[in-house]
Amino acid sequence: MTTTPTTTAQATDLTEVAERLDADDTLAHVRERFLLPPHVVYLDGNSLGPLPAAVPPVLADVVTRQWGTDLIGSWNDNGWWEAPLRVGDTIGALIGAAPGQTVAGDSTSVQLFTALDAAVSLRPGRTLLVTDPDHFPTDRYVAAAVAERRGLDLRRVSPAELPRFLRDEGDRVAVVSYSPVDFRTGELFDMGALTQAVHGADALILWDLCHAAGALPVELDFLEADFAVGCGYKFLSGGPGAPAYLYVARRHHHELRTPLPGWTGHADPFGLSRDYTPAPGIARARIGTPPILSLLALEAALTAYDGVDLTAVRAKSLSLTGFLLRCADDLLTPLGFTSVTPTDPDRRGSQVSLRHPHAHALTRALADRGVIADMRAPDLLRFGVNALYTTHRELLTAAQCLRETAAEREYDPTPRTTGPVT
Amino acid sequence: MTTTPTTTAQATDLTEVAERLDADDTLAHVRERFLLPPHVVYLDGNSLGPLPAAVPPVLADVVTRQWGTDLIGSWNDNGWWEAPLRVGDTIGALIGAAPGQTVAGDSTSVQLFTALDAAVSLRPGRTLLVTDPDHFPTDRYVAAAVAERRGLDLRRVSPAELPRFLRDEGDRVAVVSYSPVDFRTGELFDMGALTQAVHGADALILWDLCHAAGALPVELDFLEADFAVGCGYKFLSGGPGAPAYLYVARRHHHELRTPLPGWTGHADPFGLSRDYTPAPGIARARIGTPPILSLLALEAALTAYDGVDLTAVRAKSLSLTGFLLRCADDLLTPLGFTSVTPTDPDRRGSQVSLRHPHAHALTRALADRGVIADMRAPDLLRFGVNALYTTHRELLTAAQCLRETAAEREYDPTPRTTGPVT
Repeated sequence: MTTTPTTTAQATDLTEVAERLDADDTLAHVRERFLLPPHVVYLDGNSLGPLPAAVPPVLADVVTRQWGTDLIGSWNDNGWWEAPLRVGDTIGALIGAAPGQTVAGDSTSVQLFTALDAAVSLRPGRTLLVTDPDHFPTDRYVAAAVAERRGLDLRRVSPAELPRFLRDEGDRVAVVSYSPVDFRTGELFDMGALTQAVHGADALILWDLCHAAGALPVELDFLEADFAVGCGYKFLSGGPGAPAYLYVARRHHHELRTPLPGWTGHADPFGLSRDYTPAPGIARARIGTPPILSLLALEAALTAYDGVDLTAVRAKSLSLTGFLLRCADDLLTPLGFTSVTPTDPDRRGSQVSLRHPHAHALTRALADRGVIADMRAPDLLRFGVNALYTTHRELLTAAQCLRETAAEREYDPTPRTTGPVT
Repeated sequence: MTTTPTTTAQATDLTEVAERLDADDTLAHVRERFLLPPHVVYLDGNSLGPLPAAVPPVLADVVTRQWGTDLIGSWNDNGWWEAPLRVGDTIGALIGAAPGQTVAGDSTSVQLFTALDAAVSLRPGRTLLVTDPDHFPTDRYVAAAVAERRGLDLRRVSPAELPRFLRDEGDRVAVVSYSPVDFRTGELFDMGALTQAVHGADALILWDLCHAAGALPVELDFLEADFAVGCGYKFLSGGPGAPAYLYVARRHHHELRTPLPGWTGHADPFGLSRDYTPAPGIARARIGTPPILSLLALEAALTAYDGVDLTAVRAKSLSLTGFLLRCADDLLTPLGFTSVTPTDPDRRGSQVSLRHPHAHALTRALADRGVIADMRAPDLLRFGVNALYTTHRELLTAAQCLRETAAEREYDPTPRTTGPVT
């Protein structure tokens, strides 16, 4: 990665600011918990988190000793059987969920289906399922599918419009399915106010935490959220396609009926009984045999949070995104970039998104220079920051690279397929 | 593991037979493809296959280079995106499925739900869903759930009773969901005759291949089967909770509508379009982001089948189970064991199950002596053989150990929880 400094006093100033902020970073030591490749600025951890140092030795042990030597006995002796609940609780600690309410496993899409379907069953007679028109695609597709199958009408209502919508039609709403962070713009919504509004209509709220968990404090129990889902591979850095998770508030467990009654959620999974009897508690949301290698890699990855205070994570994340917005203002706005990420810290997740008509080509050109960001169609460049390892200096490097790339028009504007949309 | 030979001419004779059969084994070299622990006779590969030698180096590369260094770019550059279809085709080759009809991912329970729900949609107006009363628990639970949600009646009909049932009620049957192998007794059903009978009623057949794939030739295309599912972790040895797979015959693809429209099954998964448009072909059965570590471990494991003819696998498997039945007759029947596995080779899968009132305690005592089998409630000891690595000598050792354990009553008859039921 090569960068030539912008020939202004600005650049010197930004460099000094970055160095000062990094010097004051109380989380700086946590970066060592990640095996980041040299000469790369990785700003796509909101899509695929990098490799935590704890993963390779744990996975080698899981494969060679647990699977290879202990074989089938590992289900009991190495804790495989309990892993979905154990890892669920570990994630729960990061999202404000007391133990016994979170289970890890399957994909976010499957967990969304489970949560939406189960939530609809808890509000019989209500005919509307509400989701965000700008929600992540899988959230919208699964919501549409559940609505159709359960005979509900799907309504696409943005968080901003929700209070008015609920005043008019709240008594018909069964479930509202939202994300606290817009995956394109990085806008953060007020989880507390939205949860309260939904409960004011006696409806249920489902939060998709994919772009929030691990990046900022989430207080599911405190907010009295009903359901939540999320993936393990973004800020949690659990590995490609790491298992997802499902949170169901304890007060709903007794009545919880999931659409996928796999054998591992049975009250007596080894009893071979003819009919399905759900296990007590969140265990009833288990489905089939979990992918142990991916699940235990996720568990190892989560040790990167050991002793880390999410309040500090949030403070640093805001410092990082605030600094990147300032770099963008100084270095990129003059070249035709527009930030779509809120400047108000209370309304900002852990990413910065810049609009540019050649977003796709620019992202590729940046990657060629060792700055990994991503883009979302049609014209957004996304820069995800993770307070566990991102530095302010890296963000300045990214902004400088982008400025040079754009200024010199050194990008190929031919469209090409990107990686997965996440 | 210590064994004292039974003091009869029988034992000498069985030893000679075992040694001759092993000496003539054309698949003997394949055993080297597995990292079997020393001093263990592993007869539980029908529940969790052992570690293939190809897995550790591949997984180390996936973690360290692909994830750690190539990061998000691996979705394109290291073939992660195509992995579910690529691994699906590799499994397809083992179950008689031409390319483009099999997708790997999720758990067997999720794939069962997908297949049953999609199959019901292909037979509108039909009101019965048929499954085996002795089917594996998850198959029964998911069938009951799908029937209830789709407004069908569930009928539990054994394969033996199916022809008569179809004569009476065939015109009301939408789907029949069976396994070719009874997971308890090891009985093998006639997949061809049953498929034909189901088609004679213009209904659809779903085969659960968990206990068949990789153990014997399965000819889905030739039989004109409609749907099939299976797991990756039994005979395929893909690792604990390895991803499952779904086969849908090509003739159904155009009309296939799955209940779980995750974003990876979209025709344009990167387009962020508002509504779900299914991808062409089997790709529309993809759901969420797949667990790449587990999926690529499975892919590596499947190389154990490179150059291996499933006809030879079947011949050796029958030799192994036939020999174990002979050992049981000679050494165990006199001590109160009864075989429930058919002696007719055409009706036998790749396991032998023996009934004994202390099955549970005996399985544990065997494990203490290094012979790993399992049990199924209430009274069956199961011995799975895998022609890729099991030897006749190992089966004789297992039978001798079991004889000694039972004869000397050296087992603790206190019940205890076992590992997962699979």
